Amino acid sequence: MNIVIYNEYRHERTEPACAEVYPNGIHAVLADFLKKGIDCNIKTFCIDDVNEKMTDEVLNDTDVILWWGHMAHNEVTDETAKRVADHVNKGMGAIFLHSGHHSKPFRLLMGTAPNLSWTHNGFKEIIWTIDTTHPVAQGIPPYFELPMEEVYGEPFDIPAPDALVFIGWYSSGHVFRSGCAFKRGRGKIFYFQPGHETYPTYKNETVQKVILNAVNWVNPAIEKGQVNSGIDVEPIIK
Amino acid sequence: MNIVIYNEYRHERTEPACAEVYPNGIHAVLADFLKKGIDCNIKTFCIDDVNEKMTDEVLNDTDVILWWGHMAHNEVTDETAKRVADHVNKGMGAIFLHSGHHSKPFRLLMGTAPNLSWTHNGFKEIIWTIDTTHPVAQGIPPYFELPMEEVYGEPFDIPAPDALVFIGWYSSGHVFRSGCAFKRGRGKIFYFQPGHETYPTYKNETVQKVILNAVNWVNPAIEKGQVNSGIDVEPIIK
Amino acid sequence: MNIVIYNEYRHERTEPACAEVYPNGIHAVLADFLKKGIDCNIKTFCIDDVNEKMTDEVLNDTDVILWWGHMAHNEVTDETAKRVADHVNKGMGAIFLHSGHHSKPFRLLMGTAPNLSWTHNGFKEIIWTIDTTHPVAQGIPPYFELPMEEVYGEPFDIPAPDALVFIGWYSSGHVFRSGCAFKRGRGKIFYFQPGHETYPTYKNETVQKVILNAVNWVNPAIEKGQVNSGIDVEPIIK
Amino acid sequence: MNIVIYNEYRHERTEPACAEVYPNGIHAVLADFLKKGIDCNIKTFCIDDVNEKMTDEVLNDTDVILWWGHMAHNEVTDETAKRVADHVNKGMGAIFLHSGHHSKPFRLLMGTAPNLSWTHNGFKEIIWTIDTTHPVAQGIPPYFELPMEEVYGEPFDIPAPDALVFIGWYSSGHVFRSGCAFKRGRGKIFYFQPGHETYPTYKNETVQKVILNAVNWVNPAIEKGQVNSGIDVEPIIK
Repeated sequence: MNIVIYNEYRHERTEPACAEVYPNGIHAVLADFLKKGIDCNIKTFCIDDVNEKMTDEVLNDTDVILWWGHMAHNEVTDETAKRVADHVNKGMGAIFLHSGHHSKPFRLLMGTAPNLSWTHNGFKEIIWTIDTTHPVAQGIPPYFELPMEEVYGEPFDIPAPDALVFIGWYSSGHVFRSGCAFKRGRGKIFYFQPGHETYPTYKNETVQKVILNAVNWVNPAIEKGQVNSGIDVEPIIK
Repeated sequence: MNIVIYNEYRHERTEPACAEVYPNGIHAVLADFLKKGIDCNIKTFCIDDVNEKMTDEVLNDTDVILWWGHMAHNEVTDETAKRVADHVNKGMGAIFLHSGHHSKPFRLLMGTAPNLSWTHNGFKEIIWTIDTTHPVAQGIPPYFELPMEEVYGEPFDIPAPDALVFIGWYSSGHVFRSGCAFKRGRGKIFYFQPGHETYPTYKNETVQKVILNAVNWVNPAIEKGQVNSGIDVEPIIK
Repeated sequence: MNIVIYNEYRHERTEPACAEVYPNGIHAVLADFLKKGIDCNIKTFCIDDVNEKMTDEVLNDTDVILWWGHMAHNEVTDETAKRVADHVNKGMGAIFLHSGHHSKPFRLLMGTAPNLSWTHNGFKEIIWTIDTTHPVAQGIPPYFELPMEEVYGEPFDIPAPDALVFIGWYSSGHVFRSGCAFKRGRGKIFYFQPGHETYPTYKNETVQKVILNAVNWVNPAIEKGQVNSGIDVEPIIK
Repeated sequence: MNIVIYNEYRHERTEPACAEVYPNGIHAVLADFLKKGIDCNIKTFCIDDVNEKMTDEVLNDTDVILWWGHMAHNEVTDETAKRVADHVNKGMGAIFLHSGHHSKPFRLLMGTAPNLSWTHNGFKEIIWTIDTTHPVAQGIPPYFELPMEEVYGEPFDIPAPDALVFIGWYSSGHVFRSGCAFKRGRGKIFYFQPGHETYPTYKNETVQKVILNAVNWVNPAIEKGQVNSGIDVEPIIK
């Protein structure tokens, strides 16, 4: 499987609280457990090189893209965003993590603003499995706890997901649709809420299992290509 | 109710076959039956003035927009398209007609390519009501016939609609999901397939009734605004 | 509008803790605010008379049924349950409250076991509005608090709702899809989780507003009848 | 994989037109291509023995059930029907074929009447693939033709399917949602419309491929069991 990780990599290089948790970048931790769990090749991009280096050729050969971004969404060009969205429509799987809800590609694929409520401080989170037979939920317990996460609160401005896999409970009193599955064209998309940059969320084994499941689920099962090339056709019945 | 009709108005002024059916433009026929069926104010735009004249102020006061476009989708600027999509997200209802499936605003709201199959020649169409309790289907018979329509064939590259209201049967042997309802943010969207520019489809009384129902259904029932302003919030439980 | 309230009325007559909160039965409180909020006629049944008295004639003239049951689900006959489900399929709206998730009619309409997790003790609940444009959510704040409710926990064994309107947060750490909308045949159904018999939940004004909205939403908008009578038809094209 | 085929086997033994096409019963043809396409054990039941012989023990060990019935739906006991529905809720996959839409188990799982329109005579059918990435659609062409099938017409009184995989076109002018996927509890269900008893539909290779795909898709991927056992739980947060 060919995987691309886009991690902004701005926080880790400018904020000590984040560098402490992810000294080599969030992408290093993601790549590490992805390699252990799946037979894959991983290409990594960050805000410095995504616009020039994450080309059509690269995405043509990509099965799954993981996307983490936060403070530099606007530095991803519209062209790059459209390139990602087009490849998802043709079958490339996509996993948007945490603040990736505001990324340009996710906005394009959703057709909404993807706004949500959020808190400055961290709170305890309990993630509940709602759709226990969904492939992304396999081997995940009925609930699991994250000692500290940034609260994301409803209403989350997304189209109704094709499947609601997880709901998050926060000790702040908020709830959130923390695991949502969508399909756009031939591509499958999974949005997974946990992952604030100053908490070691991606080192949590259950979070890693969810992401591994998601990668396997969004991995295209059929040849990539447009759902319909849009050309004119002959009548079947003359 | 404040309604905006965007009709490209290119075919009617360049092709005799179209001018013959719609001498004053498709928008004239639409406006005529809309005025008879609903107490409304109608503003009309075409490709010549939509980019400059259909401003934020206009859309702020607009309850429903109807969109018919075909050969000049690319002449609608990205900025205009985004303006429409943003207003839909805030609650403005939208009805996309026929070749409007390839319009920039519809593409933005769907997050897919909206491609479909099509034929050069016209065939007989029978439109079947699938969701008989849907507001758009009220007063519409179990099926109705259009003697001649351009065939649109599956697979139609859209996200699964929130509601499938009509399916079209064509004498060419094709089928199509001819009436699809979606919600994006606070806005409701209805895509209705019939309406090739050289057939008098919009003069058909049942087609008119469907569009009137759709206008009433997408008309915002609550104050417009974003689903979530996205600002930070205080915890409920300290 | 013609409304039927089925309230089991067993707890109120056998348990002091419940009788204290609902001395005249849960149905008395429901009927009281329904009458104030809607121009309606209300018929009430309880476990003693529902099987004999809630006949086809009664349901033929009923627009909306509200159902609260808990310890006597099995005393409702299969025949009564089927009668209710058939009338919902023909257009009668139905609102299932709290432990009504295990009622025979709700089981028939869902096609699943409707099991869920629950606690013996009460906890604080915060109900969040997820689908802010849904008719049932109109005039309901972004969240509202119930000081004490019985916890219902996921996974809730229901088919994916047509619309997820509310999610409940409990101070016990649980979450639940507390407001779910479904359509079966011509009938609309709303499941609303709050309402444990020893807490004054149905005296809460926001809970009352939700139920009033739900009654107005499930109220049939079209003539009642089967979606399809199932008889043979003639071909349209010979 | 353990497969159960329930085929009524009444028509084949009482009507020459059917016996001619399926001399050893529809189940013989189904079992034949299932065995060739999947490594499986097949148990077969018909109306004569399903009520006594298709026990809980049998269904406990069954991964997938295929169901074809038509003139003897009422001879299947309510008990048998409930047994099937309960096992589907626990994870057993189910494929309902053609007139199986009126079977008792399918009615229980849908919660509607499953009525549809139908014709006495046969017409040509073209089955179109709508959801090209659905597992049941893998390797199926964009459309395929059945020279003669009984027309099933909309509106089909089912809940909105979780996925609409195929739509049928008939030369009579009708359309139908011919391939619908549902989930109830842990079980996946596929309804496939073709299969009138006097046409050799189940000998068609593409029809066989669809059914093989469906069997593989509804085959439970996880351990069977209830989504929620419904017992009381302890709070996570004290």
